[in-house]
Amino acid sequence: MEASIPLILGLLAGILAAVYAGVLIKRINGLPAGNEKMRSIASAIQEGAMAYLARQYKTVAIAAVVIAIILVIPGFMGVSGFGIWTALGFLLGGAASAAAGYIGMRISVAANVRTAEAARTGLGAALRVAFQSGTVTGMFVIGLGILSVSLFSFLVYSGTASWSALVGLGFGGSLISVFARLGGGIFTKAADVGADLVGKVEAGIPEDDPRNPAVIADNVGDNVGDCAGMAADLFETYVVTTVAAMLIGNLAFGESSIAMSLGFPLVIGAASIIASIIGTVFVKMSPGGTIMGALYKGLWIAAGIAVVAFLPITFWMLGDVTVANPVLAPEGITPLSVWICAVIGVALTAAMVYITDYYTSSTKKPVDSIAEASVTGHGTNVIQGLAVGMEATGLPILVIVIATLVSFFLGGVFGIAVAALAMLSMAGIVVAIDSFGPVTDNAGGIAEMSGLPESVRENTDALDAVGNTTKAVTKGYAIASAALAAVVLFADFTHTVTEETGFTVLFDLSNPFVLIGLFVGGLLPYLFASRAMTSVGRAAGDVVKEVRRQFKEIPGIMEGEGKPDYATCVDLVTQAALREMVLPACLPIGTPVVIIVIGFILNACGYPLAFEFTTQVLGGALVGTIITGLFVAISMTSGGGAWDNAKKLIEEGKYGGKGSFAHQAAVTGDTVGDPYKDTAGPALNSMIKVFNIVALLLVPLLALLAPAL
Amino acid sequence: MEASIPLILGLLAGILAAVYAGVLIKRINGLPAGNEKMRSIASAIQEGAMAYLARQYKTVAIAAVVIAIILVIPGFMGVSGFGIWTALGFLLGGAASAAAGYIGMRISVAANVRTAEAARTGLGAALRVAFQSGTVTGMFVIGLGILSVSLFSFLVYSGTASWSALVGLGFGGSLISVFARLGGGIFTKAADVGADLVGKVEAGIPEDDPRNPAVIADNVGDNVGDCAGMAADLFETYVVTTVAAMLIGNLAFGESSIAMSLGFPLVIGAASIIASIIGTVFVKMSPGGTIMGALYKGLWIAAGIAVVAFLPITFWMLGDVTVANPVLAPEGITPLSVWICAVIGVALTAAMVYITDYYTSSTKKPVDSIAEASVTGHGTNVIQGLAVGMEATGLPILVIVIATLVSFFLGGVFGIAVAALAMLSMAGIVVAIDSFGPVTDNAGGIAEMSGLPESVRENTDALDAVGNTTKAVTKGYAIASAALAAVVLFADFTHTVTEETGFTVLFDLSNPFVLIGLFVGGLLPYLFASRAMTSVGRAAGDVVKEVRRQFKEIPGIMEGEGKPDYATCVDLVTQAALREMVLPACLPIGTPVVIIVIGFILNACGYPLAFEFTTQVLGGALVGTIITGLFVAISMTSGGGAWDNAKKLIEEGKYGGKGSFAHQAAVTGDTVGDPYKDTAGPALNSMIKVFNIVALLLVPLLALLAPAL
Repeated sequence: MEASIPLILGLLAGILAAVYAGVLIKRINGLPAGNEKMRSIASAIQEGAMAYLARQYKTVAIAAVVIAIILVIPGFMGVSGFGIWTALGFLLGGAASAAAGYIGMRISVAANVRTAEAARTGLGAALRVAFQSGTVTGMFVIGLGILSVSLFSFLVYSGTASWSALVGLGFGGSLISVFARLGGGIFTKAADVGADLVGKVEAGIPEDDPRNPAVIADNVGDNVGDCAGMAADLFETYVVTTVAAMLIGNLAFGESSIAMSLGFPLVIGAASIIASIIGTVFVKMSPGGTIMGALYKGLWIAAGIAVVAFLPITFWMLGDVTVANPVLAPEGITPLSVWICAVIGVALTAAMVYITDYYTSSTKKPVDSIAEASVTGHGTNVIQGLAVGMEATGLPILVIVIATLVSFFLGGVFGIAVAALAMLSMAGIVVAIDSFGPVTDNAGGIAEMSGLPESVRENTDALDAVGNTTKAVTKGYAIASAALAAVVLFADFTHTVTEETGFTVLFDLSNPFVLIGLFVGGLLPYLFASRAMTSVGRAAGDVVKEVRRQFKEIPGIMEGEGKPDYATCVDLVTQAALREMVLPACLPIGTPVVIIVIGFILNACGYPLAFEFTTQVLGGALVGTIITGLFVAISMTSGGGAWDNAKKLIEEGKYGGKGSFAHQAAVTGDTVGDPYKDTAGPALNSMIKVFNIVALLLVPLLALLAPAL
Repeated sequence: MEASIPLILGLLAGILAAVYAGVLIKRINGLPAGNEKMRSIASAIQEGAMAYLARQYKTVAIAAVVIAIILVIPGFMGVSGFGIWTALGFLLGGAASAAAGYIGMRISVAANVRTAEAARTGLGAALRVAFQSGTVTGMFVIGLGILSVSLFSFLVYSGTASWSALVGLGFGGSLISVFARLGGGIFTKAADVGADLVGKVEAGIPEDDPRNPAVIADNVGDNVGDCAGMAADLFETYVVTTVAAMLIGNLAFGESSIAMSLGFPLVIGAASIIASIIGTVFVKMSPGGTIMGALYKGLWIAAGIAVVAFLPITFWMLGDVTVANPVLAPEGITPLSVWICAVIGVALTAAMVYITDYYTSSTKKPVDSIAEASVTGHGTNVIQGLAVGMEATGLPILVIVIATLVSFFLGGVFGIAVAALAMLSMAGIVVAIDSFGPVTDNAGGIAEMSGLPESVRENTDALDAVGNTTKAVTKGYAIASAALAAVVLFADFTHTVTEETGFTVLFDLSNPFVLIGLFVGGLLPYLFASRAMTSVGRAAGDVVKEVRRQFKEIPGIMEGEGKPDYATCVDLVTQAALREMVLPACLPIGTPVVIIVIGFILNACGYPLAFEFTTQVLGGALVGTIITGLFVAISMTSGGGAWDNAKKLIEEGKYGGKGSFAHQAAVTGDTVGDPYKDTAGPALNSMIKVFNIVALLLVPLLALLAPAL
């Protein structure tokens, strides 16, 4: 097969996504942006969001430049896999992810006020603006993703760059992702908790009250957390999965099939972009339908088109491959069996959506049980929420296990990679559904602050309620896809070790090095999540102090006469979030480095098993992080979502209603759930992947430890 | 070496422990039991505790008989490892564990009132009674442990029974352990939470008020949870570790060294019993000393004597062994290197004690941070407590990893087994220190209820505060030792698979079967803990309803004229605890059975990899459970202990003191921490071990799936 066709298809699909997004941007920007008060509030949010992003990127850019230099140096010393192309891939991956996040944020903070304005006309119009804004983000995520991967695939195919350049590309996305998830997560919850503590609890003013100096920071937070954070996370998973599938394909089918190995993931991606674009067009309120129904309709139409399109693609591209490594792809692999793996990936998407929906929806038993437990107090609410979060890991793990097992039976490790690829093919529309959340949340805030009539707020509230569910559901999707991606990355890791060192290293559980690695790796999510949660507390404390200061020093602020200083609050949370994100972000990047350094020290001391020690501890740690990380992340995001909706259920009048003792207890649960579901939980996705990709990148260093053959 | 010497030493040490315990029982029973009011309260607690234990054992006995029959049947069908001796071992293990728990409870409920009476004389006298009561339990745990293992070792050595009989013995202990931990844990917290909710919160009467109908159940709970539960847990770990070390020794050094393999763990155990007895004698208040100091002094003296005694024992018994399996013991293994492994085990005990102490002591930073976070409310208290719990996994995991690594370097897998053995050699005195807690807790309750003077309560309160710390510290020890035991059990599992099937099965992380096993195993602690926590809630709900009924229906109860019906409450909690413990207890026993059944179905369907699938999924699941179980258990017990002491810190006057908003928030954290630290967390220890030992027992069934050689 001619390699240029898939590469060109990939580039064209990327451009198509960007063009479609461009059309939507133009349409959204052409919509009325409301009255002057609305515009002034919106511009405050806009400025804050952009200021935060600029600062975050500046911090990350410094780290990126340092890492890029580190990636170049070993190349000069002759270590394979390092060098200028790996560094360039890394920088491009970072830049593309940053660009997707930046554009997504820009359109979100332009669409929020227009959604509020459209809500005057009706629910359908408002939904349209908010969802189209989300679509812009989604299209840029997958568009820039496929463009950069296509470009670097071409460099690899032409022999200009090594495969490591593609891994570097993934690492670039990962770095932005872990910072965006962490920084954004800390920002959004610090502002939220801080604003609530001092506004709602101390001063007794309602949420989204313009007298609260932290109110703009709170609204900025919705964007930097859910919009930019999720965009960076799924950009990373998209790129990493595509690259991992290419690597597995190349190892499974050998160099002679390189055109297919590089091309297949790109064509799958290209087809999904078209499917996603069509799907987004179908997202509109049908008469008598629900908002959730409209969103799901778009998702399932996109999934259906994709599944159908994958069939001819698989037969076209995998018609005449020969298996080079039967461990990675079984001898009898057929296009049909590969296609079924793709269907499994899409089915896993559906399963994760419905399972997360069950555990976080206010009409289902788990949320009701938390609301009921609130009647007996704060403690019982928290116990029930923790229990629901833990129980919520059960079904996702089982479906992930079954999906992994069946795809492995059908297509070996390559089959698992294809399932992951198919799952990620929905990333564009999933980001659209997710990013819709912060836009409607902001729209509600703007409507509230600018005193729009009750009917408008009813519309934005209805959208916001759905946004809460979609945020939880898309997080379930992001975690499951991260788990599959990490499993494929680990397979890449083990086989790259063999390729680079010439040794087949076994990661046998009965080997104490592997076991120790599992424990060390398993520890990372615990330390990471612990730190992320306390970071929110510290940053929120800063907000509380600043708001108290403004209440005291600015005259007439409580009477609505003095104007609060929103910018200082935004600036403060920005600084706090950036300060707090550094240490936990270093954990997944630093741990593989530390393990390898220990290996070099042992080697220098003459320890004969230094190579085995380093490789097996590292491999064990990669899997250990996936295992505990997956459980902690799911229990946190589902538990957090359930607490949130349990509070809403009580506010709707059940178990005593608003202001009751049960409601107070439910507010406690919601507060606990906030850093769970919006900071620590989602950031764990990024952490798992960044750890795996850094390890993959460092494999050539292991070759230096390997005994001479 | 003559095998009979170590076996006789083991038997003699067991008898010595029982005699020493008998002397202490006689002494305690001879002490004055206070005035009539005290005696009547004590006898109510006594009756309740015995009634609970009788019912629990009846339930477990039914399960045990069924399991014993299941263990016999495959033996008749010719499956190796099953049969009458395995079943008898199982029944003896269960009976010995039950006996240790029963005697421990009996002496605790006799000592509580005598401790209260002794507290009239002074702190030192009360400490003496309470600690001697704990010593009785500790001595019976290790005494009956070593007696039963010695007896079955003799049967194995003489060729009467197979090695599986020893595994059966461990399984018997495990079964009692998981039920005792779960049932006891649910009982104690359901009674505690229920009594508090309706007594302190609704009726506004203080804790341990005799007008509260649930007050006796609460005091009974202290005994069944901390005394009987911990006794059964450590009995199991003690037996399982001893048996696992024997198995590893036999695999490592071959049949020719069987006398050493069976004998070494017994002599180590015998020496530790003498060391522990000497250590307990030194537990007394020195002038100007602290209670904690007195307890630690006894522990460290016992540890010091044991370490010194191990040196000649190791040289005597391991002087002339030859290595049969270099994977399990390195060729160059020396008595000195084995002795250092034993020292590492004792050092790990010390490390766990100090680390847990750091994370749960009210004078250290973690507890202070939770107390400080309480000032801003319920939510921040809970967030900080969860974060502290997660962070508290770091140091224990690192020291466990280092201990495992160094013992492996020195003595291979056998070295890890010796470290575990040495750690467990402290079990007797650790149980003594732990069981001291519920006795002092009860003594305080009796002093309060019978209206003893303030000075007496000051003494019992001082003892009770120390009891809280020792309960947390000994839990850290129990978890770390369970982890080491599980690692050794897994090594037994892999090598027994090779022995039984003739195949060396690899548990390679890059094998999807293994990976899936890790996920499935990792899930068990989550489902188990989730269920255990909601069980407490449900059972506590029953208590609340019953107490409300009594308050309404018994006239004059609040004025102290009507007598509450304590027995009904005890009976109710008993029933609820037994009802709730069945389902989670089935998880670790049922999962390996289900995996093997799936394997048989796949085999019947003609799937060629049915053997690999079953073995690797099972092996992966064993390790998966150890990994997530260890993290969840440590974060729960340490987090729970920290919450408890944060509340106490505030009650001592810090951050607003008793009755402040911070105090209310701290009560919420304490409520959440209760099922964390006393139900779910400690029960996970038992769960991890029972899962591993059931799998080990089922290995011969895997041989039926193995392809013909």
